[in-house]
Amino acid sequence: RVNADRLWDSLMEMAKIGPGVAGGNNRQTLTDADAEGRKLFKRWCEAGGMTLSVDKMGTMFATRPGTDPDALPVYIGSHLDTQPTGGKYDGVLGVLSGLEVIRSMNDLGIRTKHPVVVTNWTNEEGARFAPAMLASGVFAGAIDLEYAYSRKDPDGKTFGDELKRIGWVGEEEVGARKMHAYFEYHIEQGPILEAENKQIGVVTHCQGLWWLEFTLTGREAHTGSTPMNMRVNAGLAMARIVEMVQTVAMENQPGCVGGVGQMFFSPNSRNVLPGKVVFTVDIRSPDQAKLDGMRARIEAEAAEICEALGVGCSVEAVGHFDPVTFDPTLVSAVRKAAEDLGYSHMNIISGAGHDACWAAKVAPATMIMCPCVGGLSHNEAEDISKEWASAGADVLLRAVVETAGI
Amino acid sequence: RVNADRLWDSLMEMAKIGPGVAGGNNRQTLTDADAEGRKLFKRWCEAGGMTLSVDKMGTMFATRPGTDPDALPVYIGSHLDTQPTGGKYDGVLGVLSGLEVIRSMNDLGIRTKHPVVVTNWTNEEGARFAPAMLASGVFAGAIDLEYAYSRKDPDGKTFGDELKRIGWVGEEEVGARKMHAYFEYHIEQGPILEAENKQIGVVTHCQGLWWLEFTLTGREAHTGSTPMNMRVNAGLAMARIVEMVQTVAMENQPGCVGGVGQMFFSPNSRNVLPGKVVFTVDIRSPDQAKLDGMRARIEAEAAEICEALGVGCSVEAVGHFDPVTFDPTLVSAVRKAAEDLGYSHMNIISGAGHDACWAAKVAPATMIMCPCVGGLSHNEAEDISKEWASAGADVLLRAVVETAGI
Ligand SMILES: NC(=O)NCCC(=O)O
Ligand SMILES: NC(=O)NCCC(=O)O
Repeated sequence: RVNADRLWDSLMEMAKIGPGVAGGNNRQTLTDADAEGRKLFKRWCEAGGMTLSVDKMGTMFATRPGTDPDALPVYIGSHLDTQPTGGKYDGVLGVLSGLEVIRSMNDLGIRTKHPVVVTNWTNEEGARFAPAMLASGVFAGAIDLEYAYSRKDPDGKTFGDELKRIGWVGEEEVGARKMHAYFEYHIEQGPILEAENKQIGVVTHCQGLWWLEFTLTGREAHTGSTPMNMRVNAGLAMARIVEMVQTVAMENQPGCVGGVGQMFFSPNSRNVLPGKVVFTVDIRSPDQAKLDGMRARIEAEAAEICEALGVGCSVEAVGHFDPVTFDPTLVSAVRKAAEDLGYSHMNIISGAGHDACWAAKVAPATMIMCPCVGGLSHNEAEDISKEWASAGADVLLRAVVETAGI
Repeated sequence: RVNADRLWDSLMEMAKIGPGVAGGNNRQTLTDADAEGRKLFKRWCEAGGMTLSVDKMGTMFATRPGTDPDALPVYIGSHLDTQPTGGKYDGVLGVLSGLEVIRSMNDLGIRTKHPVVVTNWTNEEGARFAPAMLASGVFAGAIDLEYAYSRKDPDGKTFGDELKRIGWVGEEEVGARKMHAYFEYHIEQGPILEAENKQIGVVTHCQGLWWLEFTLTGREAHTGSTPMNMRVNAGLAMARIVEMVQTVAMENQPGCVGGVGQMFFSPNSRNVLPGKVVFTVDIRSPDQAKLDGMRARIEAEAAEICEALGVGCSVEAVGHFDPVTFDPTLVSAVRKAAEDLGYSHMNIISGAGHDACWAAKVAPATMIMCPCVGGLSHNEAEDISKEWASAGADVLLRAVVETAGI
């Protein structure tokens, strides 16, 4: 078993970097706080006897050598970046549990046949730069490196420039590495494990996703002196699309979600009808047909809504991955580890996207989940207990040692 | 008659300061561009033999003395500030036509009994700081000076600090002056005069307004892993309120408008359901009962919408004025001036708010309007012809000379 206190202390130490405004974190990718978090993680890795390599997307790979020089490494990965008002555990738990696995193996004198690599993927959250899981997407060959570099944050700064600015452009080609297996340990970010009173989620699948960025073009006009029948009201079209997305999601229950998190009005003045409204629709389902059906319906109905109002409508898919089925052998290894350790467990489908979803394209991959209070995540109030955290890390240690071989 | 070319040249000269991105202007109040615009106007006033005084709200009063030392001045006012994506004429036409009236009187050797004062009111637009017509509101005693100073722009900067920063806090007590009469010449900002093919709008009334700033409180949560039935979705409540405002406005036709120009999502991340949504509803009517009825209905229905979704809802009125009836004597003076000059004219109700609406609280006041192309305003493409501009300025000159006495 891992050292629960040490894991918890490291989580609390990392949480000091990029503090939020309400007890959580704002350590968005490629900010100064991200750079500081990376430095701390690097120091910890080196103190644990690992060697660090960084790829051209800034992803950090910390390697503990194996006993067989020809064996491919077993990877443990997640991310240290957060949402603007994010929690202390989303992503961080996975990376620091990877570190804790190494520290525990060092303590216990465990040498594995396969090397073990702890990975911190860049820009998992996708809060600053869409899409989410950008670096693992490039790693898996699903996203082009140049496209990734060109992605812009709301201030117009590019991913490429910001990665350079914080000094974390590595030498390594992205995706050059081969993996024997990939594990990711993460908080559930949903309510199921807590409600079912289970310590461990054995993650069998992950929902697929579309992020549809709508740009609605109306006519800027005075809110007071422009008669109702002369308005080309992009804000009204937006309202109808938000409601329609809700309807589409509700009509596809169970097994899907849909919502809008990001919204920009332009010129965003109280007495100007917006000339431009930009927002992102996020829809997800583990069912490929449902996911694509929802997308098609949303685009078609949005076009109708806009046409009726004379509003221009363009849609760009700024994020996408298909539903994922994780590797059955690794899933079994996780389940067996939980059983051997006497932890209660159940199968679960990940509602959020994870770097494991892209890793699964190029390697056997799976995930482990622990509950989080009230299913709350992407909220500074996100919370887990020390016992929940360490139970999952124990399962991770056992499954990794099993897979990496002694 | 005024010098149409000189008026037009001054308009074009002023439009060079704070250029927009699409041929209009971004000379928002209390920005560096505003300061530059004020400097140019001051230079012109001094060259025209006027003496400048500035009050504690930064409003500029340029006086041409009268022949009777005891006579109260006749005021000509409007504003030089613009929307973030504003036109070249909204407000500016009124101020520079005031200047042109003085220049023309100088050319023609006309001396009036009453002094004539050309006024540039601070923060008419209300784009940076709500409410609109802030300085004239303080002047009329409807708004408190300390409240005005405390108003914040979206970056959190206060009106008071920004006025100090650009160096335009004057000595004069706000509202200390008494007015014999107040005239304001403005583009219509609506479609009626052009559609009716009239050169001059004789403005008899102005619509009343409420600006209702809604703050909706939801629960920040992951867009992917939060089931539909666990969401406290402030964005969805917003969409329903925007649609409801449209419905209320449509059900109160004719004679009212309603819309939403400003919108902020927080944390504004694609994969976070918003914890907070702030937006401003703008409703107007010349009919007091309709205006107040719409407000009451909108607040009641918004509360219901939010309650059904578990979303918190608070409403602050950040702008308000009652419908205004302009002074019948001055209205007649404007109509007579148009007739004497042979300009086609019609009575009109102002759809937008103007400093004249506050001036009317403390003095006989009225307005003159000229058409604008397609009724478009609060848009960089706002347009008028030189002939439209000068016809209104001619009427202004004549009505002012008539009222100020020779
Ligand atoms: N785990 C997580 O929150 N990832 C961010 C990408 C997503 O929106 O699912
Ligand atoms: N004239 C004008 O656009 N004033 C701004 C205040 C308003 O919204 O009516």
